[in-house]
Amino acid sequence: MANADETPQTAALMGKGRMEAFSDGVLAIAITLLVLDLAIRPPGSPTDEFFRAWPSYVAYVVSFLTIGGAWIAHHSLTDRLEGVDSIFLRLNLLFLLAIAFLPFPTRLVAEALERNTDWERLAVTVYGITILATRLMFAVLVSYSRHQHLRQERADDPDLEEARRKSGVTLVAYALTIVVGLLLPIVAIVFYFALAVFLVVPFKTVARELFGRRRAA
Amino acid sequence: MANADETPQTAALMGKGRMEAFSDGVLAIAITLLVLDLAIRPPGSPTDEFFRAWPSYVAYVVSFLTIGGAWIAHHSLTDRLEGVDSIFLRLNLLFLLAIAFLPFPTRLVAEALERNTDWERLAVTVYGITILATRLMFAVLVSYSRHQHLRQERADDPDLEEARRKSGVTLVAYALTIVVGLLLPIVAIVFYFALAVFLVVPFKTVARELFGRRRAA
Amino acid sequence: MANADETPQTAALMGKGRMEAFSDGVLAIAITLLVLDLAIRPPGSPTDEFFRAWPSYVAYVVSFLTIGGAWIAHHSLTDRLEGVDSIFLRLNLLFLLAIAFLPFPTRLVAEALERNTDWERLAVTVYGITILATRLMFAVLVSYSRHQHLRQERADDPDLEEARRKSGVTLVAYALTIVVGLLLPIVAIVFYFALAVFLVVPFKTVARELFGRRRAA
Amino acid sequence: MANADETPQTAALMGKGRMEAFSDGVLAIAITLLVLDLAIRPPGSPTDEFFRAWPSYVAYVVSFLTIGGAWIAHHSLTDRLEGVDSIFLRLNLLFLLAIAFLPFPTRLVAEALERNTDWERLAVTVYGITILATRLMFAVLVSYSRHQHLRQERADDPDLEEARRKSGVTLVAYALTIVVGLLLPIVAIVFYFALAVFLVVPFKTVARELFGRRRAA
Repeated sequence: MANADETPQTAALMGKGRMEAFSDGVLAIAITLLVLDLAIRPPGSPTDEFFRAWPSYVAYVVSFLTIGGAWIAHHSLTDRLEGVDSIFLRLNLLFLLAIAFLPFPTRLVAEALERNTDWERLAVTVYGITILATRLMFAVLVSYSRHQHLRQERADDPDLEEARRKSGVTLVAYALTIVVGLLLPIVAIVFYFALAVFLVVPFKTVARELFGRRRAA
Repeated sequence: MANADETPQTAALMGKGRMEAFSDGVLAIAITLLVLDLAIRPPGSPTDEFFRAWPSYVAYVVSFLTIGGAWIAHHSLTDRLEGVDSIFLRLNLLFLLAIAFLPFPTRLVAEALERNTDWERLAVTVYGITILATRLMFAVLVSYSRHQHLRQERADDPDLEEARRKSGVTLVAYALTIVVGLLLPIVAIVFYFALAVFLVVPFKTVARELFGRRRAA
Repeated sequence: MANADETPQTAALMGKGRMEAFSDGVLAIAITLLVLDLAIRPPGSPTDEFFRAWPSYVAYVVSFLTIGGAWIAHHSLTDRLEGVDSIFLRLNLLFLLAIAFLPFPTRLVAEALERNTDWERLAVTVYGITILATRLMFAVLVSYSRHQHLRQERADDPDLEEARRKSGVTLVAYALTIVVGLLLPIVAIVFYFALAVFLVVPFKTVARELFGRRRAA
Repeated sequence: MANADETPQTAALMGKGRMEAFSDGVLAIAITLLVLDLAIRPPGSPTDEFFRAWPSYVAYVVSFLTIGGAWIAHHSLTDRLEGVDSIFLRLNLLFLLAIAFLPFPTRLVAEALERNTDWERLAVTVYGITILATRLMFAVLVSYSRHQHLRQERADDPDLEEARRKSGVTLVAYALTIVVGLLLPIVAIVFYFALAVFLVVPFKTVARELFGRRRAA
């Protein structure tokens, strides 16, 4: 019966090509749809109207980097998979559900920043919970694939290592920022921006690049 | 003349790559476009407005899971194909027509739940008929590919087996729910949610996982 | 110098993978975006409102089949290519320009059918010219790839043969329907529907299927 | 320690497939979303309304060609890559950020041309800066991939050569056109159109084609 644990697993392994294609599609569409919610509104001179819409630009950039970072992490996870099983496909679907939902709270944040603090509080909270949900679902994907031995044993992918090191910290940071957002919504937005940048920038690779170069010179 | 039945068939077999890419594209876009119809409307406090929009969240999740389930089923069907012929491409187009139409009745349902029972009745009926159409077209795809021997003989794909077992039951269930929706629209929505979950959750695999594990332990 | 005609050609041949992926993307998005223009408008009972929107459903189906038919034709053309050169990429871009524009006249037609004959005349004419432009650009792609010997010599692709046989006829038919639309816009819509069906249905394959079967039986 | 410069580089090289798929997705969606901003507005006869919307058609075509040209350049760059490293992925994300943003200034331009010169000035400036940003980010991608030796040594890709020859000139041309737009917005639009055409048309290939042909004849 010990075998029953392995054989069906292997039999169930499917090619990962279409899962990647479908995920790329959803991620690419979600990231590009964000632009539809950019809008300028009267009254004012052209320049006034344009610059008064700054909260929607900020929300746009934060969400773009957040989804972009999720894509990089997803790419570096699936790049290491031998294949996927039917449960992985479903967990991946829930991950995509959280990602595809993000344009909605992004719009809420953009609109709220032009209104009042009550609105900001609500919008920023929904925004934070959605991002936290994407991070949690991604952590579930990583943990499931490790637990089911779906991953190839290949050493030192800098992106994956980076993602693993950052994973625990960021979950806590996002949870804390949600609390901060209840009191100081604008500050929370700054934090979400900082976290998105932190997740996207490959500090270690950049450091090694700079460091290695200087030494070699 | 018996050969005429086979030779042209084989000659007509095309690579399935682009059919999969195009289908993935349409499914990924339809599932991601759903977010554009989420909106909150005055009047009320921020929290009021946000929670009053619950029907659109419910409709969003049901449609997301329905299209997600359709993608999983489609993936597991085409994964087993040797290739496609020109009739399969057209039937697939009709399947995609039903899928791509789904965001429209989803919006109708979200709007109707904020209005009155007459609206709910209409919206839920159109919604149910669209889902039934996607299921019927998928059944046609499966039956055509079996009939034309487009499928590889490979054993035990859990997703495909699961889909086959569930197929007849769900067609009947969707048809019955359409009738239920004429009387009790809200109840029908709950049923559509339950059916989407039923189609997406791979019960047998989950059971085997849990069962096998407990035994092995 | 005769060589100069061939060598650079071959050197310039690129993989067709990304051209196909990009084209699939644009075609899949254009076909799925059509749903965003479906809408029902007050006043009336739910059923009234829903059925009064019939012109937008008709326009939706005609455009869906037209783009779907264009995808099938494009698929069957590129399936036969050895590779693409830099001019093919540009011509393909113009083909995609016409396709990606189609949702706009589709919306015009849907709106016009709810207004008056002057609007119908304008909308149907713009619609027809756009479809004719997609067909012309596709004919240019086919002719360029034949002229530059980009195509593999492989016999009997039923879709390609079908497309070739239908190509000249449909260009004339679309041109004539544009003229018809100036006088009888509604009739032109019926014609566009008939032409889309005519282009999508693989009559010869269906006939052979039915004929071969009956003989074999 | 000199090795440290090379070994980690090679270890970090990843397949470029998903980066291409994701980029194709974003580019294809951005180019197709442009159609959503085409709209005609009362008052007037049908023909009046339709032709009064000419600025949105012009903006549509300029942006379509600009994104299309960016896709061709990106395609011809990545076609030559051995693989990508984690920094390339991030730089590519910034390139896509600029591309995905373009539909917003396109809409601004379309709306501004129907208003007054102050609006045109603002819209055309934002539009120009966005295009310049896409060109700059692309130049960064090219330079990074050359510097990190990510590229295969393969001779004479006409598209790449064309792009390289045009790159410096166009950066200057776009910067100058931004200045022109502050004074004469309409003239700047004409320049952006001319530049998009200039970037898309493969003059050298066309010339060789015509020239070689005439000689051979």
